[in-house]
Amino acid sequence: MNSGASIGIDVGGTKCLGVLLEDDRVVTEVRRPTPRSPEAIIDTLEAIVRELGDRPAVGVGVPGLVTRQGVIRASPNLTDVADFDVAGMLTARLGHSVVVDNDATCAAVAEWRAGAARGHRDAVVVTLGTGIGGGLIVDDRVVRGTNGFAGEVGHMVIDPNGPACPCGRRGCWERFASGTALGAMARAVVRAGGLNAITTLVDDVSDVRGEHVCMLAGRGDVEATGVVDEFAHWVALGLVGLANILDPSCIVIGGGLTASREVLMDPVRHHFARLLYSPDLRPHPRLEIARFGEVAGAVGAASLATMSMSA
Amino acid sequence: MNSGASIGIDVGGTKCLGVLLEDDRVVTEVRRPTPRSPEAIIDTLEAIVRELGDRPAVGVGVPGLVTRQGVIRASPNLTDVADFDVAGMLTARLGHSVVVDNDATCAAVAEWRAGAARGHRDAVVVTLGTGIGGGLIVDDRVVRGTNGFAGEVGHMVIDPNGPACPCGRRGCWERFASGTALGAMARAVVRAGGLNAITTLVDDVSDVRGEHVCMLAGRGDVEATGVVDEFAHWVALGLVGLANILDPSCIVIGGGLTASREVLMDPVRHHFARLLYSPDLRPHPRLEIARFGEVAGAVGAASLATMSMSA
Repeated sequence: MNSGASIGIDVGGTKCLGVLLEDDRVVTEVRRPTPRSPEAIIDTLEAIVRELGDRPAVGVGVPGLVTRQGVIRASPNLTDVADFDVAGMLTARLGHSVVVDNDATCAAVAEWRAGAARGHRDAVVVTLGTGIGGGLIVDDRVVRGTNGFAGEVGHMVIDPNGPACPCGRRGCWERFASGTALGAMARAVVRAGGLNAITTLVDDVSDVRGEHVCMLAGRGDVEATGVVDEFAHWVALGLVGLANILDPSCIVIGGGLTASREVLMDPVRHHFARLLYSPDLRPHPRLEIARFGEVAGAVGAASLATMSMSA
Repeated sequence: MNSGASIGIDVGGTKCLGVLLEDDRVVTEVRRPTPRSPEAIIDTLEAIVRELGDRPAVGVGVPGLVTRQGVIRASPNLTDVADFDVAGMLTARLGHSVVVDNDATCAAVAEWRAGAARGHRDAVVVTLGTGIGGGLIVDDRVVRGTNGFAGEVGHMVIDPNGPACPCGRRGCWERFASGTALGAMARAVVRAGGLNAITTLVDDVSDVRGEHVCMLAGRGDVEATGVVDEFAHWVALGLVGLANILDPSCIVIGGGLTASREVLMDPVRHHFARLLYSPDLRPHPRLEIARFGEVAGAVGAASLATMSMSA
């Protein structure tokens, strides 16, 4: 065992990504498909840890509602099993403690410790994907909440007359500002006869995704630019709410849409500056693109594990 | 000087309320009108402190955006002066340091240290008044934010098509869920020919306030109960957003409307339980009425001053 390095694993709906982290740098990556049963998932996690050479500091990021004890209360995209005790089961396998936390919290830790929010004591990290993941840093500490469920920013209601959300409510922020939402907006425009240039990217309207719209906008397509602008307004509206509540010095945006960089960020910054409360009376938070892409969750899980060893 | 006691002053738009606090109990109260100019306000604060027998621990709660250094950046209801350095000016007068913070943050501290949120490490305190004041406790610490502006929960946008807010945006939470908002809802119903029983409480429709609607609902008036229920839905919608973001174990509601106690709290609790994300997978936060009424800001300011002495 090498105490200078740590292992982090991000458990996704389709694959598990493990990293060996040394001095905040990824030195090895391992990928394996995510199996369906809890027992098989633990098998996979154990195998990844052993492949990376086991370390005292092992962290795991998982989707869904995760308790402060590392138990998944629910994770619809991962397993139907309720109360999946990832921390307890993996600790028993490895013979030493592990840290398990929500994947969006892990991604936030990565950006805060070594990425786009480094050096900021108050930061918000959101990942625009299937939904919206959120991780919060307040006064140089990770916000977990009483149950460990803090950061469920995607389910802020932002328009009570908005579309139904699978969570059972209406008008949650992620219905408007996730990658999924941008894809849906774009498909509606295509079906109404617009966004003709999208046919250069996809054959079938049902394949249109948010990334395609950002790509088109990046090429200067006027219609796509309009769709991205409307989408950016919704992104900014939620970010402003978080800024009014938490007053961070940095907001980091991650997820596949940020591959188009300023195509999305410029209109988000424009709407944010317009919507922030008392914009003339304060320095605005920096709005940054996440530095860690796909490996954010794994890197952050490894960082959390290291932090817990020295706590 | 008696180091066991502390002094807190809440600076309101019309009056300044000072308290001498001993063992979390108010032993003396002093009230003075709030003058208009910054210099005269400082005169009044100094006079109150001296009347209460000056102490090393002096705290002041003020409305508006307050920096971490105790400077009021803006406070429309108090003064037109920008950058009013309350902490610096009062320290110069008294010859010892003072603590100055936002009044809603002070009220939250009072409830957390000695009131309805006592013993909770993660708490949200909102005051439904002219607007909505917010104070946040995360992991047993007061959340201030990078500028000191955290907790501006009243300006979360909750319906982008909602009514215009004096802050320049549309559909801020306080347009729907403040005491002001309930009064406006009630006046609209009266002008449409409803809420006839309100004539037992006020002569003129323009005098109808939120408190009157709660009083009528408390007497069993069906129409008033309906108005309070709709209002409670809006209150709950914002509280749920805060709970999804921060996962507190306790949410405290203050302000004049809570004088009617369960008349308001029961429907708020009902809608909250219905709207919370993943309500079946977690213990719900307790929804409590603020213990400190009018003196909350002053008591919390005194507590903050004591905390800063021992920090």
